[in-house]
Amino acid sequence: MTTRWLTPEEQRAWRAYLGATLLLEDALDRQLQQEAGMPHMYYSILANLSEAPERRLRMTDLAELLKITRSRLTYAVGRLEKDGLVRREECPQDKRGSVAALTEEGFATVERLAPGHVETVRATLFDQLTPRQVGQLEEIFTGVAQALQGEDAGGASGDVPWRRRSPPCS
Amino acid sequence: MTTRWLTPEEQRAWRAYLGATLLLEDALDRQLQQEAGMPHMYYSILANLSEAPERRLRMTDLAELLKITRSRLTYAVGRLEKDGLVRREECPQDKRGSVAALTEEGFATVERLAPGHVETVRATLFDQLTPRQVGQLEEIFTGVAQALQGEDAGGASGDVPWRRRSPPCS
Repeated sequence: MTTRWLTPEEQRAWRAYLGATLLLEDALDRQLQQEAGMPHMYYSILANLSEAPERRLRMTDLAELLKITRSRLTYAVGRLEKDGLVRREECPQDKRGSVAALTEEGFATVERLAPGHVETVRATLFDQLTPRQVGQLEEIFTGVAQALQGEDAGGASGDVPWRRRSPPCS
Repeated sequence: MTTRWLTPEEQRAWRAYLGATLLLEDALDRQLQQEAGMPHMYYSILANLSEAPERRLRMTDLAELLKITRSRLTYAVGRLEKDGLVRREECPQDKRGSVAALTEEGFATVERLAPGHVETVRATLFDQLTPRQVGQLEEIFTGVAQALQGEDAGGASGDVPWRRRSPPCS
């Protein structure tokens, strides 16, 4: 099959997206590392739990929300548990402890970190965009995520990270 | 100062972008890991060198192209050097070996991997976009990168990753 190389327009878009995304990740990680000694992904775990009913989520659902593998999540939650921010609990349906619950200290940490984190997201991304571009951003990446998750029949394989290890409680 | 929380539109855009980006990174890494046992960043190092004059770049310039820290690049280039794909050379201006050069084997590796990589980029991203959205993607992230690199006077700090360690040859 002949390779469908990128057009010059696609190459420019790809490089702009890749470069800006690496810089954004770096800025978000640095702000949270300086503020709380944790990378952006750890903050995302706490933030997702803080918004969930009773501040707890099954590990499988949390991995899907975060778009990461179960093993990556298990490692991160282990670290957060050591710091007293998250507690592993047994799942009502079985005994393998696959629910993550935010502790009081974890909730206080999210409350303390949220303003600085949001300010960084705003300064690095949204302050650079017009309202129209915010809509374009949502539309572009909603479509990309759907294809990657196999929700679109014509899309990619649907081999999503969070299904790669058999979830013990689902 | 009052926190400028994200609007509902901004929240939707942020979540779509974050989720899709994690899925894209995962897909790119997996394809290259399966094909060549290397993550996307390592492939990017080889690809950038393959396009440079004489297939060599100063480490400082390579870090800037890749938007990563010098220490992250040094580690990655060390691994690629062990595999015979890259060679460290002395810089004409001093003796500290801070030029990375692509070996013949490295060039052959890029040539072998490029079609599969580009196909993945196309299937996961560009096949989901209209030509108009390709233009929007470029415009959005060119602006974001410029602000993060401090090229815009009103932008962020310009504390860019590749300047965080003093470059030995510049």
